[in-house]
Amino acid sequence: MKIKVTDLNKVVVNILSSKFYSEQEAEKISEVLLYAELAGKNTQGVLKLMGTEPAQNIKPEYTAKILKETKASALIDGGGSAGPLSAQFGTDTAIRIAKENGFSIVGLKNTRSSIGAIGFYARKIARQNFIGIVMAGCPRSVALVGGLEQVYGTDPMAFSFPTNEHPIVFDMSTAAITWYGLVRAKTLGQKLSDDVAIDKDGNITTDPTAAMSGAILPAGNSYKGSGLAMVVELLAGALNGAGFVFDKGDKPDDWGTTFIVISPDLLIGTEEFKKNSSELVRKVKSKKTKDGKVPHIPGYDTEFKIMDILRTGKVEIEDTILEQIRNIGKLD
Amino acid sequence: MKIKVTDLNKVVVNILSSKFYSEQEAEKISEVLLYAELAGKNTQGVLKLMGTEPAQNIKPEYTAKILKETKASALIDGGGSAGPLSAQFGTDTAIRIAKENGFSIVGLKNTRSSIGAIGFYARKIARQNFIGIVMAGCPRSVALVGGLEQVYGTDPMAFSFPTNEHPIVFDMSTAAITWYGLVRAKTLGQKLSDDVAIDKDGNITTDPTAAMSGAILPAGNSYKGSGLAMVVELLAGALNGAGFVFDKGDKPDDWGTTFIVISPDLLIGTEEFKKNSSELVRKVKSKKTKDGKVPHIPGYDTEFKIMDILRTGKVEIEDTILEQIRNIGKLD
Repeated sequence: MKIKVTDLNKVVVNILSSKFYSEQEAEKISEVLLYAELAGKNTQGVLKLMGTEPAQNIKPEYTAKILKETKASALIDGGGSAGPLSAQFGTDTAIRIAKENGFSIVGLKNTRSSIGAIGFYARKIARQNFIGIVMAGCPRSVALVGGLEQVYGTDPMAFSFPTNEHPIVFDMSTAAITWYGLVRAKTLGQKLSDDVAIDKDGNITTDPTAAMSGAILPAGNSYKGSGLAMVVELLAGALNGAGFVFDKGDKPDDWGTTFIVISPDLLIGTEEFKKNSSELVRKVKSKKTKDGKVPHIPGYDTEFKIMDILRTGKVEIEDTILEQIRNIGKLD
Repeated sequence: MKIKVTDLNKVVVNILSSKFYSEQEAEKISEVLLYAELAGKNTQGVLKLMGTEPAQNIKPEYTAKILKETKASALIDGGGSAGPLSAQFGTDTAIRIAKENGFSIVGLKNTRSSIGAIGFYARKIARQNFIGIVMAGCPRSVALVGGLEQVYGTDPMAFSFPTNEHPIVFDMSTAAITWYGLVRAKTLGQKLSDDVAIDKDGNITTDPTAAMSGAILPAGNSYKGSGLAMVVELLAGALNGAGFVFDKGDKPDDWGTTFIVISPDLLIGTEEFKKNSSELVRKVKSKKTKDGKVPHIPGYDTEFKIMDILRTGKVEIEDTILEQIRNIGKLD
């Protein structure tokens, strides 16, 4: 069903501000969830008000604070908040430091849920004419290739680049499907494809509930997926003092995120870089495909989709999910 | 056939120093090729003296030089040399700057061949107690998913982390097989597996020659492989003024590399990080697998293999390849 973006934002902000978050904080979280819906990343959108860790139910202990800051870095304690709130602060801090220094690395620890669509933060960085690398750790749910146990999280990564037009933003989970991909399939009564998860005996399953007690497969069921997940665990977990190879429900249940911001002025220069990145878009889009379609540039093409939605003012949300969100709104 | 590592090094250095490189330069290139052989990355080893761009035939125009340096970065002109020589200089420069600043990004442009096993450079960084990210661009050979044309290079990336024992080094090609994987199959008269390349009409091929005029598939034949390749083209090519979406034989035929070096002292601290990364190794190795084998940690486990080879002093090289290398040695 189509719903007005402004109405959806109202519902989401109401839910988020009904318990532990101020309206201003709720707006910051909602901005991330709505971006996911507009960008077509529907496992990271309003679904995050449902499932295994609804954002509105994460009770923060205190406001996020900077534990340590250098000319090139900051380590942030998220205060036990929902991921998107602290991650917005992390992104802003990383951009602030990079504006002075040309580079920054910001580590975030002590958050209690997913940061949502990781591309949101990377895009925010690229819009400031910086290159962004963002990695986010999460609790164990993914097996190694040939594994029987959950080892790493679904551990997403994002890379972003300014161009003379829209930013290029590439994000991916290092797993074959995200955790909220399972939540979504379960909520909608859908089956999984037969190459993304195993049950607790290590056999391929298409049942999202069996997958939750079994394990998700690494991206491509390949050592490359597992290796990239390990990189995220080390950069976003071990480097920040957040969790790594950790369980949901561990005390603290500590999801880490790392933001790396690089000014192209450190190397070829911002204007020259944007000329090159725009040229890359043009080059790739000129290449032939089997179905005759123009090749897709991640993030860059998404902006046209977002602009289209904003032009009509309405976004499509699955009926079942919208109904459940409205019910949560009534209950709260 | 097993050959003494010291003898292999002599043969390789002789070949490399027979035309354009001093013995000292040849030693630096040989160090990278021999690492690949010791680490079991045999598409990046002595094979690089053969195939489409034998390292000894790359005639440098001048010695590598730093074009620009800041407190946090350097942009290097490789002088048109073989990749490993300039990449050794790039790595050393990145480490030097990071030792003063806690961070560095070094861009390398104007090299004329593959840098070889990208893990070599990442490992060198991690051995200095830094976290390393290395990405290397190369000429077009890989199609997009559903594509018909070569778009990106095989564009490898590496990530490295110090521990209290061996460094963790994860490297991967963003393509389903490396270019020298094709060269190796062709040299040994082997077929490719049926999921790594297409012929010029876009049909899966197992013939390395048909793949060379067709295209390699992205890693996992997935948008994730293509997306990561795009990231490498932007970070290692567009950001350094090197080639991106470029052809072998373009003038200049400019392969770029980017080195990012991060001191854990910017965030949690080096000792704490190494405690955590060592703990990650222990945690992952305790996980169950279907075949009962202890999970593999990339790079970390490779060090045991390298130590074993160095203990016996002998390394296994395919007879056909060793024979061809010896013939090259005689001819030069």
